[in-house]
Amino acid sequence: MTKTELLYEGKAKKIYATEDPEVILAVYKDQATARNGKKKVNVAHKGTLNNQITSHLFNYLKANGVASHFIKQVSATEQLLHKVKMIPLEVVLRNLASGHFETKFAVPHLMQFNRPIVEFYYKSDALDDPFINDAQILALEIATEAQIEALKTKALLVNQVLKQLFDQLGITLVDFKLEFGLTSSGEILLADELSPDNMRLLDKKTQQSLDKDIFRKGLGDMIPAYQEVLHRIEDKEQNANVLS
Amino acid sequence: MTKTELLYEGKAKKIYATEDPEVILAVYKDQATARNGKKKVNVAHKGTLNNQITSHLFNYLKANGVASHFIKQVSATEQLLHKVKMIPLEVVLRNLASGHFETKFAVPHLMQFNRPIVEFYYKSDALDDPFINDAQILALEIATEAQIEALKTKALLVNQVLKQLFDQLGITLVDFKLEFGLTSSGEILLADELSPDNMRLLDKKTQQSLDKDIFRKGLGDMIPAYQEVLHRIEDKEQNANVLS
Ligand SMILES: Nc1ncnc2c1ncn2[C@@H]1O[C@H](COP(=O)(O)OP(=O)(O)O)[C@@H](O)[C@H]1O
Ligand SMILES: Nc1ncnc2c1ncn2[C@@H]1O[C@H](COP(=O)(O)OP(=O)(O)O)[C@@H](O)[C@H]1O
Ligand SMILES: [Mg+2]
Ligand SMILES: [Mg+2]
Repeated sequence: MTKTELLYEGKAKKIYATEDPEVILAVYKDQATARNGKKKVNVAHKGTLNNQITSHLFNYLKANGVASHFIKQVSATEQLLHKVKMIPLEVVLRNLASGHFETKFAVPHLMQFNRPIVEFYYKSDALDDPFINDAQILALEIATEAQIEALKTKALLVNQVLKQLFDQLGITLVDFKLEFGLTSSGEILLADELSPDNMRLLDKKTQQSLDKDIFRKGLGDMIPAYQEVLHRIEDKEQNANVLS
Repeated sequence: MTKTELLYEGKAKKIYATEDPEVILAVYKDQATARNGKKKVNVAHKGTLNNQITSHLFNYLKANGVASHFIKQVSATEQLLHKVKMIPLEVVLRNLASGHFETKFAVPHLMQFNRPIVEFYYKSDALDDPFINDAQILALEIATEAQIEALKTKALLVNQVLKQLFDQLGITLVDFKLEFGLTSSGEILLADELSPDNMRLLDKKTQQSLDKDIFRKGLGDMIPAYQEVLHRIEDKEQNANVLS
């Protein structure tokens, strides 16, 4: 399948139409952004790494019963996806306190919650992605009650599967952000990407960040960390294949 | 019952112990504050007016099946209350878009919601009362799931009763803030105050504010507006007594 017109260029990906109206092609860019795009830099290899990590993780989720928009990886930086109508909510899941949460509630860094926290942010660059609650989502008609419940259930399920995977890789899954879309039949499908751009990952041994916090906090080169994440995922898959 | 030691001095009231350990006395102060106390001014008669309005509204709620901490008004500025353990949440209910909501979501002023919105804010001067969702309340162990549901149900009930009352007074109830507490037996009781300091009220004829927005926005003297609210409530009560 070949890409036709550019439908949308975001901060991390370009989205193209294909000959199939139900299928789009995502091209991962070598761009890193923080603070809603206010900090922006070109980072060689980032597109390739995020494309590969995302592809592995969507495949892994599928094998563990979690459907997504992912069809297949088609080149170093490209993947084919089922086109969905995006729900304009960023769904954030937290296992340990970090980032905004830590500052907002003045709790200890990496405080463990007795249960995961799901948060919604209204995806709007103009409004700076405001934090939103269920009643506001309903009143503004962004999603229905059933959709809100489905988003929470799916986010918790993704967390369960990924947390266990990363545990096996010696990595703590601190928090992450998901986006979902609606298929033409109204089904809610996990979409967007699953990369260290959208997760906080800590090496269990060194407690070092293996994610975009390296860039956000100006801690150095993010590429070796992203490579490390990819290699651990690939090693596990090879071992699994060897054993099976 | 006489007041003994001062237990707490807040922005709007002083709270005293009494001889009965289960009963406290609130003294309404002549002080107006905005922006979490950053703007602060002495306003003669405000304490008397808020004490009277609050007393009327708690009595009215009681007559309409909504229990509260209110026992009785004992002087121009004082009321006796059942002492409760405050739940550190500000429960905000919105019927129409105004204030922070309007700015945050860039919606038209006084946009009407298809259903009332309930929001929680974590009551903490140090943290600037951050907006909080149900999952965060649970994870931070601020309230249980059953308590959260009870707070929502009670806030919606208060809204139903007060909205109808204010409608009869020619006043639109735009939004308001409630606080709740726990009795020694674990019952959730409506507490704190119910005054134009904690509500947005619009005269249906003139669309003028009859609440603290006059002070927040520096629109002039708030006292005539508070007096107007009190008089309309008292007139209605007198008519009801004459008719019964
Ligand atoms: N399956 C899909 N169908 C349609 N749009 C999608 C799909 N998956 C992701 N998108 C959207 O693709 C856009 C490009 O991604 P990205 O560069 O991350 O954008 P942004 O800067 O808005 O975060 C995003 O708006 C995202 O919501
Ligand atoms: N029934 C009650 N028992 C104990 N405390 C109460 C009760 N009702 C209200 N309070 C508390 O009384 C305090 C004084 O009120 P206020 O001056 O409005 O304080 P603040 O500046 O914290 O808003 C508040 O902390 C409020 O939560
Ligand atoms: Mg994105
Ligand atoms: Mg108060």
